[in-house]
Amino acid sequence: MRKERDELGERELPDEALYGLQSLRAEENFSLGYRKTNLRLIRAMVTIKKAAALAYGKIAESDRQDLEGDKNGKAEKSRAIVEACDRVLAGEAEGEFIVDALQGGAGTSTNMNVNEVIANMALKILGKAPGAYGIVHPLDDVNRGQSTNDVYPTALRVAAIELLRELSDGCAKLQEALQKRENEFEDIKKLGRTELQDAVPITLGAEFGAYAQAIGRDRWRLYKVEERLRQVNLGGAAVGLSDKLTRRYRFEVIEKLRELTGMGLAAAEYPMDLTQNNDVFVEVSGLLKSLGVNLTKIANDLRLLSSGPHGGLGEIHLAPMQKGSTIMPGKVNPVISEMVIQVGIKVAANDFAITAAAARGELELNAFSPIIADAILESLSILNRAVFLFRTRCVETLSPDRERCAELLAASYAFAASYGGRLGYDRVSAIIAENRGDPEKIQKALDARETSLQVAEANPPDRAAEL
Amino acid sequence: MRKERDELGERELPDEALYGLQSLRAEENFSLGYRKTNLRLIRAMVTIKKAAALAYGKIAESDRQDLEGDKNGKAEKSRAIVEACDRVLAGEAEGEFIVDALQGGAGTSTNMNVNEVIANMALKILGKAPGAYGIVHPLDDVNRGQSTNDVYPTALRVAAIELLRELSDGCAKLQEALQKRENEFEDIKKLGRTELQDAVPITLGAEFGAYAQAIGRDRWRLYKVEERLRQVNLGGAAVGLSDKLTRRYRFEVIEKLRELTGMGLAAAEYPMDLTQNNDVFVEVSGLLKSLGVNLTKIANDLRLLSSGPHGGLGEIHLAPMQKGSTIMPGKVNPVISEMVIQVGIKVAANDFAITAAAARGELELNAFSPIIADAILESLSILNRAVFLFRTRCVETLSPDRERCAELLAASYAFAASYGGRLGYDRVSAIIAENRGDPEKIQKALDARETSLQVAEANPPDRAAEL
Amino acid sequence: MRKERDELGERELPDEALYGLQSLRAEENFSLGYRKTNLRLIRAMVTIKKAAALAYGKIAESDRQDLEGDKNGKAEKSRAIVEACDRVLAGEAEGEFIVDALQGGAGTSTNMNVNEVIANMALKILGKAPGAYGIVHPLDDVNRGQSTNDVYPTALRVAAIELLRELSDGCAKLQEALQKRENEFEDIKKLGRTELQDAVPITLGAEFGAYAQAIGRDRWRLYKVEERLRQVNLGGAAVGLSDKLTRRYRFEVIEKLRELTGMGLAAAEYPMDLTQNNDVFVEVSGLLKSLGVNLTKIANDLRLLSSGPHGGLGEIHLAPMQKGSTIMPGKVNPVISEMVIQVGIKVAANDFAITAAAARGELELNAFSPIIADAILESLSILNRAVFLFRTRCVETLSPDRERCAELLAASYAFAASYGGRLGYDRVSAIIAENRGDPEKIQKALDARETSLQVAEANPPDRAAEL
Amino acid sequence: MRKERDELGERELPDEALYGLQSLRAEENFSLGYRKTNLRLIRAMVTIKKAAALAYGKIAESDRQDLEGDKNGKAEKSRAIVEACDRVLAGEAEGEFIVDALQGGAGTSTNMNVNEVIANMALKILGKAPGAYGIVHPLDDVNRGQSTNDVYPTALRVAAIELLRELSDGCAKLQEALQKRENEFEDIKKLGRTELQDAVPITLGAEFGAYAQAIGRDRWRLYKVEERLRQVNLGGAAVGLSDKLTRRYRFEVIEKLRELTGMGLAAAEYPMDLTQNNDVFVEVSGLLKSLGVNLTKIANDLRLLSSGPHGGLGEIHLAPMQKGSTIMPGKVNPVISEMVIQVGIKVAANDFAITAAAARGELELNAFSPIIADAILESLSILNRAVFLFRTRCVETLSPDRERCAELLAASYAFAASYGGRLGYDRVSAIIAENRGDPEKIQKALDARETSLQVAEANPPDRAAEL
Repeated sequence: MRKERDELGERELPDEALYGLQSLRAEENFSLGYRKTNLRLIRAMVTIKKAAALAYGKIAESDRQDLEGDKNGKAEKSRAIVEACDRVLAGEAEGEFIVDALQGGAGTSTNMNVNEVIANMALKILGKAPGAYGIVHPLDDVNRGQSTNDVYPTALRVAAIELLRELSDGCAKLQEALQKRENEFEDIKKLGRTELQDAVPITLGAEFGAYAQAIGRDRWRLYKVEERLRQVNLGGAAVGLSDKLTRRYRFEVIEKLRELTGMGLAAAEYPMDLTQNNDVFVEVSGLLKSLGVNLTKIANDLRLLSSGPHGGLGEIHLAPMQKGSTIMPGKVNPVISEMVIQVGIKVAANDFAITAAAARGELELNAFSPIIADAILESLSILNRAVFLFRTRCVETLSPDRERCAELLAASYAFAASYGGRLGYDRVSAIIAENRGDPEKIQKALDARETSLQVAEANPPDRAAEL
Repeated sequence: MRKERDELGERELPDEALYGLQSLRAEENFSLGYRKTNLRLIRAMVTIKKAAALAYGKIAESDRQDLEGDKNGKAEKSRAIVEACDRVLAGEAEGEFIVDALQGGAGTSTNMNVNEVIANMALKILGKAPGAYGIVHPLDDVNRGQSTNDVYPTALRVAAIELLRELSDGCAKLQEALQKRENEFEDIKKLGRTELQDAVPITLGAEFGAYAQAIGRDRWRLYKVEERLRQVNLGGAAVGLSDKLTRRYRFEVIEKLRELTGMGLAAAEYPMDLTQNNDVFVEVSGLLKSLGVNLTKIANDLRLLSSGPHGGLGEIHLAPMQKGSTIMPGKVNPVISEMVIQVGIKVAANDFAITAAAARGELELNAFSPIIADAILESLSILNRAVFLFRTRCVETLSPDRERCAELLAASYAFAASYGGRLGYDRVSAIIAENRGDPEKIQKALDARETSLQVAEANPPDRAAEL
Repeated sequence: MRKERDELGERELPDEALYGLQSLRAEENFSLGYRKTNLRLIRAMVTIKKAAALAYGKIAESDRQDLEGDKNGKAEKSRAIVEACDRVLAGEAEGEFIVDALQGGAGTSTNMNVNEVIANMALKILGKAPGAYGIVHPLDDVNRGQSTNDVYPTALRVAAIELLRELSDGCAKLQEALQKRENEFEDIKKLGRTELQDAVPITLGAEFGAYAQAIGRDRWRLYKVEERLRQVNLGGAAVGLSDKLTRRYRFEVIEKLRELTGMGLAAAEYPMDLTQNNDVFVEVSGLLKSLGVNLTKIANDLRLLSSGPHGGLGEIHLAPMQKGSTIMPGKVNPVISEMVIQVGIKVAANDFAITAAAARGELELNAFSPIIADAILESLSILNRAVFLFRTRCVETLSPDRERCAELLAASYAFAASYGGRLGYDRVSAIIAENRGDPEKIQKALDARETSLQVAEANPPDRAAEL
Repeated sequence: MRKERDELGERELPDEALYGLQSLRAEENFSLGYRKTNLRLIRAMVTIKKAAALAYGKIAESDRQDLEGDKNGKAEKSRAIVEACDRVLAGEAEGEFIVDALQGGAGTSTNMNVNEVIANMALKILGKAPGAYGIVHPLDDVNRGQSTNDVYPTALRVAAIELLRELSDGCAKLQEALQKRENEFEDIKKLGRTELQDAVPITLGAEFGAYAQAIGRDRWRLYKVEERLRQVNLGGAAVGLSDKLTRRYRFEVIEKLRELTGMGLAAAEYPMDLTQNNDVFVEVSGLLKSLGVNLTKIANDLRLLSSGPHGGLGEIHLAPMQKGSTIMPGKVNPVISEMVIQVGIKVAANDFAITAAAARGELELNAFSPIIADAILESLSILNRAVFLFRTRCVETLSPDRERCAELLAASYAFAASYGGRLGYDRVSAIIAENRGDPEKIQKALDARETSLQVAEANPPDRAAEL
């Protein structure tokens, strides 16, 4: 075991651990057993650390600081840090990110954890033992010029954009799949229902067309909102002040990060705003909730339409994906739809958490950004998978029951509404009331009435006089 | 117009207005157009003012302060305040409570409004003009020895208990109504459904029996939680300190309030706790939400069971309550159930507001008690009405469709599960898969298989050996 | 009392009542005592009815249906309906819209109520008695060709756009007010705080600048989202089918509505989608929630900064708006901020209700649109007022306490962070730990250390060798 | 790789995998990457399987089914199943429970997973290969007579009770710790604050006493609610029918489960109710939310009281637990409190999810019980840890700053309120307004006024005449 110490005292760490003392303290302080910090967030943060090291390298180079060779080893250290970042991104530090996601401290512990892992990985690259922070220091060298308060919100934006793009694409594919079914089912006439009551005739295709429209809207919204996330406060340090001294670093690090991520990131004009305000995540989460609502609505419709098979609507059949019951052989349940609905619920619950946390921002910082990060990245991740599974295991594999559609339509008096305009609402109502339960008689009575009306209209009375 | 002034300046008020300057300022400061403070809360607060006046009267009497006649008019003033409270409770000050429900200030403005109305009503009784606060002062005389911080939480408890009792009774009646239907429908065999898929045979009566059980649980919970509300911090003044000097007042005022309300109120042992903590309202609201969930579940079931009439389940018929559509004559919608579901949503939304506000308590007070009061009294009120309307306009008036219940049961293979125990799950599954869509063939195949099995069991192989 | 009857029987109505039997039934069915349907929604619906009457008038005219004079009185009836709408919009039917906001039936009852009031108002104009529906029929004449399912969502969009524009403007004014304070306070140096702990020096102006940025974002979001609401399913009737026969009506009625409202409304390409999907309202509500979060954050900051006056931060003073306590004379509370925070909570609670209701859409309709309408219009209305009151009664009237700002900054060691880059994090930490509680000694020790370091750097050791 | 097949086809599984084909299908169907099913739930379910095997064993024994020796191997199989359960409970099947927590199918897949693991473990014990279901069948033998619909809700109750007991104990310890601080701090006079404004003098001890009261209430609530969870529908099979044939099994299995768990479980009188209704979990979650609210309030108070150290209230000091910043050396943040507040947010978010899912119950089952189980067990687990960490790392280690408490109290005019009763509210208000900002002058003026009043009272005017 190696030893590390700080103002609170000395502690032992496993010799080979890349994390250090601050990570260990944080692991213990926040030992909720909830779950570890999202790896997407950590990867984005490591990418920022790499961008920072490269930015400082470039500044040093252009300042010809190393004109006389790397006398003080700064360039070598810088290269080691960059390589350390690459190795971490390649997965070589698995298991080293040990801090719970619901940590206090506004993300400082995750930043400390990342700094320590990179520093120790760099030390390894330089042939030194973990903990030799006199050579590579987690804060002075890796965290150099940064603060959790600018790195953390920036990393969250990078991680979110990555997942948002995937989600927008996934929605596009789901929209296409729904439109394919729309086309396939466009000639299947069936009963339309409002408030679960028989209404007017529609087609099965039109139902899928309406679903496609809703998902198309989600796709567009998720695509457009990325621009709101592209503004980053990186370089803003502790509270987002636009320090003149750091302007050059700020320019370079964002430039490097843009290269490394392929995202059109831009320096915030007012970094102090983004350090303390999280409304952008409330906005994004609100859109994820809108998608959740649309998915829930569609998934639930598919459950209704496939209910039965004998004692329900039964107008479509969902492809069986697994046994439906441990006690009822042969039962097929709409399990994918049920999962999708639960994802919708989870996304709305996460939205609640994000809103509550964002509303608790105070003065120059929001101390509760860890739960915001955890919730929004979870929503994005599970939506991505849910959209994929819903498309491939439900929408694309379901089949219509044409006979059942025709049968239920024929059994109803959905046709009656169309007589309203000509016969008048009250007359049609009365005819239906008299013949309730017998669509055939209703149709005959309506037709009879219409004929007599047409005769009457040939010789209209003078209505104006009546008025 | 009469004039009143305070540190902020002079303002005109309508001559006959019973509210005063502080009410006017509050009306303007909080002019959200949301809605006025709940009258139930105001009535409870007026009752507390009356109790306080009576308590001081009794203390004065026992101290023989008036031994020499009412020289300084204190007793006369006290009687006028008591009578003023009675008149307000009788509805004589309608329209005088002008402050919006979402006011800032932890309820101070509602308390000011009540104090001013009572003071001016007392002045009227004494033959004086409104505003003559030198004679009856809203704070020194009416609010005497009280603080918003003890009066407001106490008034909220009194108002809540009143509504809770009504709600518990309403649940009892709904439970009875459901049990009556349970008995009436106990012989109606029908298809049971899980995940909207045909499952096993049950009775319609059993379904209503399960509903009755859930509502019975609500009734019990709501009945029991009253005891948590009976502890009051009245007499605790600004922050709930147990001041020795006020102990006698505290004892008397709660005694009087107990008499006036008929509720078993008790002085909190630690009033400071109840001045600052609102978890009790979170607890009560959580129970209201549980009721909302049960009502939603039942109301939605009734919508499913009555769906159709031709293209849905159609196992029950809800009594028509109004025309269902402006364009589809003859349409009958499950409107009462839909209202009940919206009430459930509203109660859950209110629970959110109560939780968010309660979690924002700070140090010796929660500044956001007005939204807590508004939300919990609204939940209680609309649940009371919803439970009544649901019972009388839906549960008691719906009718079963025996033929439809029998028809759907016969058309399904709900009987198949019962073969699982004897034939084995896999055999039954296979038979259903082979004959999917044809319940009759499934039944025959299962029976045949069972017969052959019984023959086999007569001469069992030595299974132990196999193991 | 006049009498009206339908399939459910005959009922009496006040002679002069403009509402009719269906309104009465709905009032009773939904008698929750919650509150009546939002008048903004009703006004928008009446505007649609007027647009429809004008559209039919124009179609009739161009078809030269009235070539031979208004023989059957159709044109006269049409003119009466248009005038009736105008009178209702002018406020002549106050008190006639009697249906509770949380009604079942997807808004049908509100539509019925509007139809009946317009029909009876038209009858009045024609010199007939209310109830003479043989002459002007609420459904055949006023509701003609419409359905609740296209009228209601369209009316909600019109009402929401109107309020959204007001809100976007209000945010612009608030942003300006905040920026004005930013400029005024730009030279007031003060302590920056993260996690409520002393951090680094900033200016009071910068704090207000950050607030302005957040509100500016809200303004932009609310401005942009209008475009999503401009698509309407008007003309889509019961389920949103694009019926060829009604295409002309659809074109004309939207054209007229555009004229009457001055809004760039457009016919939805796929009306069936908008009839059943409410994700757009979830989206808008999500943005309102983002505004609520920003307002809450700012309002709470102002509470923190003005806490005291002696035992808190006290860096700003909020202008007193009313007495702060019934028992503590001289107390001034941040009442406007507290109201704003409660509005934020309410808007988030409404967002919950909107989400829950939208997720319960089923097949061709969402039966729970009334709670969606009620909640979103409430959020918009109270935000409008809150933004106005917050600006005029808090942001514009608060004043800084320059001495206090300077005093607290001087008392802290906020300056220490700036030494980190030069001295190294660990050295600065150690110096602070040694001198905890004494900013002066910290400063001296840091300066001494820096001097000795500069000396050392003049003769740097060969660090590369060390590596 | 071994092969298994069902109606959907054949699939390969790792030879040694104890899970089977249905687990594999479920893993793929629900591959959200969210997280696996809670192990507490699985352990409870395995305990139920063991109870069932023991119950059938006892029934068989008393029926003397094995009179002639274990000819067909039933007893041996039963013993193997019991032992398999013990091994799984001992942790020998780690990694075999592979189904995501947000699965569709109302928990069927978790039940299938458990059945398959136990069956294969039993086969292993019997010296057979995994997959030899002809010998031990996951459904016919392990799941025998059970249904997911009775096993799952029962397992959830058992797991919840276990965690609830721990939480109630944890609250008791926290309450004690708070009361210890109450006693230690009872003589520390300080400023009380309402709405963050200086109010009246209190003691630091009283503040901790109020916290202790709130937590004491939570303890009691959590202790009492267990009784609601003790009713189980075990033995109720698919929809909870009280089948006469299974009554004996039902009696025995609950008896065994009571023995195995040490919990006072009882057979539900109306199992169908508990199969379909989840209001009990809404109730429990509501209480967890109440605890979350109390913890949030206390944790936030500690943040406020410890704010500074120089530019805040600074009345207490939280023990430093780790470095507070990567850029500001020496900074100490209230990280434990911030974690606790995030736990409170998460618990409220989970409550949302539980409510939304419970409200979606339909007919004989709630398909969304998996998210209910996941959310409630998470809330219980993280609350348990949060209560422990909050106590040991914050409440027990914080220290008061007596000087600061005294200093702030002296600087304020908190004493002024006590003059109100004698001098009258308006007089005290005026004196404070005249001397605003100077507590000393306020005190003097109040004292002078009081003296002159005492003189005046010696010769009271005839006030009654005035009236």
